[in-house]
Amino acid sequence: MHTRILDAAEMLLRRYGLPKLNVVDVSRHLNMSHGNVYRHFSSKTALRSAVVERWLGRVSEQTGAIAHKQGPADQRLIEWLRTLAAIKQRKVTDDAELLRAAVQVVRDTPAVQDHHADLLTRQLTGILADGKNDATLPRVDEPRRTAVAILDATTRFHHPDMVANGGAPEDQMHGLEAVIALILSAIGEAGAIARR
Amino acid sequence: MHTRILDAAEMLLRRYGLPKLNVVDVSRHLNMSHGNVYRHFSSKTALRSAVVERWLGRVSEQTGAIAHKQGPADQRLIEWLRTLAAIKQRKVTDDAELLRAAVQVVRDTPAVQDHHADLLTRQLTGILADGKNDATLPRVDEPRRTAVAILDATTRFHHPDMVANGGAPEDQMHGLEAVIALILSAIGEAGAIARR
Repeated sequence: MHTRILDAAEMLLRRYGLPKLNVVDVSRHLNMSHGNVYRHFSSKTALRSAVVERWLGRVSEQTGAIAHKQGPADQRLIEWLRTLAAIKQRKVTDDAELLRAAVQVVRDTPAVQDHHADLLTRQLTGILADGKNDATLPRVDEPRRTAVAILDATTRFHHPDMVANGGAPEDQMHGLEAVIALILSAIGEAGAIARR
Repeated sequence: MHTRILDAAEMLLRRYGLPKLNVVDVSRHLNMSHGNVYRHFSSKTALRSAVVERWLGRVSEQTGAIAHKQGPADQRLIEWLRTLAAIKQRKVTDDAELLRAAVQVVRDTPAVQDHHADLLTRQLTGILADGKNDATLPRVDEPRRTAVAILDATTRFHHPDMVANGGAPEDQMHGLEAVIALILSAIGEAGAIARR
């Protein structure tokens, strides 16, 4: 039921936008009473947050698959950063209404973003710790501190506001590559860039 | 006269906000005819852009003073990045109306931002080229390419939108230090961070 409500809410949000998303329309769409929906989501705000949270969860699921797979950590770091940026870029063109909703919900309810950012930070921390162990990222000192710095340093390429106003996707991905090169020069093996 | 009009426009913008800034009010404030103001600024949009351009020019003047002074390039790089971030942070609290105006004008007239970004990029390129010469930034390959990457990597700390929504200034400056450390690990002398 929880999932069915979220599915309906997400569909209505995509179609009519966040400002028009409310419990009454969702329950009408599902042919159920408002009370029924309110039992799952105590308010319009809770419902909106839950839709955006699930949507962000799909992003961190995709990046998580990269974080947790096998292989040299430096390559996973590159793939993780490229994937995160590519997912966000695609949303600008293919899922604009939900992206706009996410920007709004995150401004109103920062906890939603904090949770998402925390998940991403933990994934990246894991990759960096792996890189200390497999010696592909030998100059990582404190994985968590470095993970936060890398997420900050790539904000331009994954923050919804920045991506939405950041120019042509090709240019953005080109810019990202230069920042990735900078990051690998800082923490990767000496000479690893040249080998790539 | 040009300067007097800009001064009046800036003052009115600070007091009443961008949407209310127009040629009629500016000319009234200066006791001159609209025609007189229009001779200097062909439209409301041109007037608004000019106010924001001059305001941004003051930022690049301050950072330019650091770019062009004497001393080791790596230290100038650090000071330049800290100053750029600190100027923007201060504006969030002390000059919010003009910052908001700048965000709006830059969205409507990207050329204003392009010109500002270009000035900043040239200053940073100069510092990095100096760092190749004085050997404090020996691992800079192409100064301009690296300058663009560094500006991208620090967007989180100098882009008006990001700074305005980026949390407490102390936290932001703390985050910036971690990114500066990453940048210096990438292009600075080996061991230079530890010496600092």
